[in-house]
Amino acid sequence: MQVAVIGLGSMGMGSALSLLRAGHAVAGLEPRPEARAAFVAAGGAAVAQGADLPQGTEAVVVFTVNAAQAAAAIFGPQGAAPRLARDAVLIVSATMAPADARDLAAQAAAHGLLYVDAPVSGGAARARDGQLTLMLAGSPAAMARAAPVLEAIAAKIWQLGDTPGQGATMKVVHQLLAGVHIAVAAEAMALGIKAGIAPERLFEIVTNAAGNSWMFENRMPHVLAGDTTPHSAVNIFVKDLGLVGDLAREVAFPVPLAAMAHQLFVSAAAQGHGGIDDAFVIRAYQALSGITLPKAG
Amino acid sequence: MQVAVIGLGSMGMGSALSLLRAGHAVAGLEPRPEARAAFVAAGGAAVAQGADLPQGTEAVVVFTVNAAQAAAAIFGPQGAAPRLARDAVLIVSATMAPADARDLAAQAAAHGLLYVDAPVSGGAARARDGQLTLMLAGSPAAMARAAPVLEAIAAKIWQLGDTPGQGATMKVVHQLLAGVHIAVAAEAMALGIKAGIAPERLFEIVTNAAGNSWMFENRMPHVLAGDTTPHSAVNIFVKDLGLVGDLAREVAFPVPLAAMAHQLFVSAAAQGHGGIDDAFVIRAYQALSGITLPKAG
Repeated sequence: MQVAVIGLGSMGMGSALSLLRAGHAVAGLEPRPEARAAFVAAGGAAVAQGADLPQGTEAVVVFTVNAAQAAAAIFGPQGAAPRLARDAVLIVSATMAPADARDLAAQAAAHGLLYVDAPVSGGAARARDGQLTLMLAGSPAAMARAAPVLEAIAAKIWQLGDTPGQGATMKVVHQLLAGVHIAVAAEAMALGIKAGIAPERLFEIVTNAAGNSWMFENRMPHVLAGDTTPHSAVNIFVKDLGLVGDLAREVAFPVPLAAMAHQLFVSAAAQGHGGIDDAFVIRAYQALSGITLPKAG
Repeated sequence: MQVAVIGLGSMGMGSALSLLRAGHAVAGLEPRPEARAAFVAAGGAAVAQGADLPQGTEAVVVFTVNAAQAAAAIFGPQGAAPRLARDAVLIVSATMAPADARDLAAQAAAHGLLYVDAPVSGGAARARDGQLTLMLAGSPAAMARAAPVLEAIAAKIWQLGDTPGQGATMKVVHQLLAGVHIAVAAEAMALGIKAGIAPERLFEIVTNAAGNSWMFENRMPHVLAGDTTPHSAVNIFVKDLGLVGDLAREVAFPVPLAAMAHQLFVSAAAQGHGGIDDAFVIRAYQALSGITLPKAG
């Protein structure tokens, strides 16, 4: 198929490469010239705006940071919509509010396009290997049209229903857990440091006990190593826990733990750490208590 | 060795049976006649008060609910202390404040007894199999004396240091993670229900994604099945997150997520659910929102 990937960040680039490997003709849409050059070097095509995509593009996979970027790239003044084939399918993997997924799906329908709400779990490495997990919602027609693309990028596919927004809802609930788990990992690590436990020993014990979480095990090594390289940045959870609050208010449900965790990510960002790895939400605890982090991290 | 186990609850009974299997002479100390009868039927001895333990008991493993029960059973008026051999070792596995562990160790020293601060991770099944995880602190002499007992009950032993209280500190930090993970599992599950996601599907997706935790995977099946059988009760985390708050104040460290999670367990207990399974901290979210739980759980 003629496929476009919007956003050549770590997830988009990995998925674009997986699509190339599966034999699709792939054009990446990305403002950063260095990312475009890297994708061209890998055998893809690359453009800076939607209006330059190949005419007759049949599927578009969207890995923008949020809904507004997705809407602009597809339906904006220099957007991709006029270049798409009749009955082309939009596969939208950006994390967004369910209401935004429904709005984008309505705009797609107005343009005669199919829409799959397709948020994703799994990091850059799994994107490169075509091993992402997708939480899908869309009509049977949209799913059928998207199938060859989904097969190339995902190892695991969960069907949430046929109404766009259901995938986004599941992803937002997932991010509630992910965000709170990172923040509480930082809370426990920081309390342990303050109470005199060697942080490496704390890590070793927790990851062998019932207090473990996927996020504790994945993120706390960054704190132990003092490595702030943003595998996923603090600002992503400032956004995603914000989406949790939005969804919760929309359905009238209180989320006290997510709300508290959100404030801790906001604090880390407020101190100028929004661009570093999200494990460094621990900067909020450092500011609150004056602890020293390992390796002066 | 002549060993006493104080408290034949699920953890104590399991460990007492593991000690019998390892060839030790074991007496259980337990107020409930049915638990004493069960242990006698399994080949052990059982008494209702410490003063009735065999004279010359060489090691005492303590699985009481808290420090006050441990102090009463050993040093109280009908306590075990006078029955113990010179240089007997106390191996105290109750979860308690580090300050209480230090106090008990000081009382032990005043009686000429050795002391190992030995909090535990692992449930009833691992206790029965002699496969517990222990977080130890104590003098080399105490550790050496305790070794044959520890070997019989634990698969994994972490040495935290030689000062009683260091094991308790690690356990309290561990319980911060465990308690928050259970509460946030309930928050996510309840939000998902309110937002219209099938709870079984939510469970399946989270346990295959980065939002997973050991506690989410272990406890949420109880909610899905509507099974309130207390594998570990709400009141345990009312107590343990209370210990987290105590430790945090003692070392001057703020724990906003643990404090919020504590309030949710307190709410479940306030509604009369302190004795049911701790996954039913979700009753707090039910009360706050009016959601219906699976199987009317």
